[in-house]
Amino acid sequence: MRRVSELREAVNARIMAAVQKPAPVTLYEPMRYIFEAGGKRLRPILLLLSCQALGGSENEALDAAVAVELLHTFTLIHDDVMDHDDTRRGRPTIHKKWDVSVAILSGDGLVALSYDYLLRTPGVDSARLGSLFSRALLEVCEGQALDKEFESRWNVTLDEYFTMIAKKTATLIALCGELGGMIGKGTPEQVQALHDFGYHLGIAFQIQDDLLDITADEKKLGKTWGSDIMRKKKTLLLLHALKAASPPDRKELEAVLRQPTVRESDVQRVKALFERTKTIAFARERFLEHIEVARLQLQRLPSATAASLSHFIQLILNRHF
Amino acid sequence: MRRVSELREAVNARIMAAVQKPAPVTLYEPMRYIFEAGGKRLRPILLLLSCQALGGSENEALDAAVAVELLHTFTLIHDDVMDHDDTRRGRPTIHKKWDVSVAILSGDGLVALSYDYLLRTPGVDSARLGSLFSRALLEVCEGQALDKEFESRWNVTLDEYFTMIAKKTATLIALCGELGGMIGKGTPEQVQALHDFGYHLGIAFQIQDDLLDITADEKKLGKTWGSDIMRKKKTLLLLHALKAASPPDRKELEAVLRQPTVRESDVQRVKALFERTKTIAFARERFLEHIEVARLQLQRLPSATAASLSHFIQLILNRHF
Repeated sequence: MRRVSELREAVNARIMAAVQKPAPVTLYEPMRYIFEAGGKRLRPILLLLSCQALGGSENEALDAAVAVELLHTFTLIHDDVMDHDDTRRGRPTIHKKWDVSVAILSGDGLVALSYDYLLRTPGVDSARLGSLFSRALLEVCEGQALDKEFESRWNVTLDEYFTMIAKKTATLIALCGELGGMIGKGTPEQVQALHDFGYHLGIAFQIQDDLLDITADEKKLGKTWGSDIMRKKKTLLLLHALKAASPPDRKELEAVLRQPTVRESDVQRVKALFERTKTIAFARERFLEHIEVARLQLQRLPSATAASLSHFIQLILNRHF
Repeated sequence: MRRVSELREAVNARIMAAVQKPAPVTLYEPMRYIFEAGGKRLRPILLLLSCQALGGSENEALDAAVAVELLHTFTLIHDDVMDHDDTRRGRPTIHKKWDVSVAILSGDGLVALSYDYLLRTPGVDSARLGSLFSRALLEVCEGQALDKEFESRWNVTLDEYFTMIAKKTATLIALCGELGGMIGKGTPEQVQALHDFGYHLGIAFQIQDDLLDITADEKKLGKTWGSDIMRKKKTLLLLHALKAASPPDRKELEAVLRQPTVRESDVQRVKALFERTKTIAFARERFLEHIEVARLQLQRLPSATAASLSHFIQLILNRHF
């Protein structure tokens, strides 16, 4: 069984081969640019570990692993356009370095490539594999649509928030567990356990993302600290704070967000308010709850293999950016 | 065997069912909006006729037919953003009626739906079906990338133009013939004939598109007359005219195109120049050549069935918008 760093290298090598075509340069160069910036490759690694956990060969899962990373990267490129994000991993985003057309098109091209790789997977029902992949992609689009719709709404509930992040973030990570389980020839029960493992890790991952925006070191984050607040994103933190704040605190928070532009000094005030309303603690609790539910899924899998997936949880717990 | 209008209705009914989901409203409403505007549905009809031509059941091809129209519509939505087109079929484009984010996302969602429908096709090798579909999608992206790259280049050759339209337009129409042939259980030779039939019709179709921009009735066109010239698009007409023009004509044409904004009066001058350089006649000849090569492919198919595909050629010849 290969170590995580070896799996990451195998995935990276295959990704770079997938995007090596020289022309048209405005299609393939942005793809190389974004993959060369690196990344943790958590999704393909989860897919490969899930396959291994059932005794499957990671070589047979490698094309599907590449497919989920290509698909994930497509969502990053298009989301950066929609969210007007100027930097990613410390470098200009594609629509900033080139333009919006190049970003749209290189994202579209990655979707084509991701299906192409997915359907190379041997020994599985391709129709089912492709159908799960397509439904996950559609859910991701639904999640992003909800996220954008929330920007102009003040009455978003915590339930609506959890529905949104389930679609936008958890679906794809759940898919990684599920596909890995299918390729590893798991029983329906095992495949479901791997799906649920990914799903709850995905929810935890998104809550952590919301937290890191305000708690992380900016240099490590690779993007502006407090950018969610400046963009008035309806994160778990903001929604909880709006709900839990005392009347004067709520008034202050709304005043900050009603400004045309939120300044950095406002971000500091909002952070203090998040502390006062125990919002940071609330989000940390929700994060740990979902980590715990994910961990429980491992009991539904062969015990000898739980170790590598436990290690995967650790990768997420240790994330600082 | 059903008539073309019945096939179109069957496709439309299934498309509307595919996009009926009420929420998120910013994802599905733009999809309904663009399909409700109508359209000739040439691609799905070609796919269904190709299947029928080999004695296949059009019901088995209906999901794939829906898939190609969903995919085609996704390209329209994203291309309209990239080309800054404000109207389509006489109505505001999605990024104009909503915004760029909504256009990006509803296009992305259509890709997911198109694969979902494609992979419902019974009785075929799904991996092969999906792989052909993905490669066609990637070619379409390459074609659009080349088209955009040509905008800032003056030395585009006619060969480069034909490579671009082969990828951007002909590939998807060739795919319709090919998929229809596969679902109709054709021999490799028959499937290839249907592929080539679609390919040459596709080339002809794009040349016709370039011609209609300058020869069509604006109201029927559903977009601004002469918009290719105003956008300085490297169409077959422009490339031929630049090549065939006398030195003073070439100078005039370059002067028009070097202006920051091309006015409507300039379009009239360019049209006259296209006539003088026999550019319109040249493009008409290339159009008819490819129609003829398409027609020749029908000899490679069972003769009893050539009639409906001949009729399909007529649909294209009669196109005025």
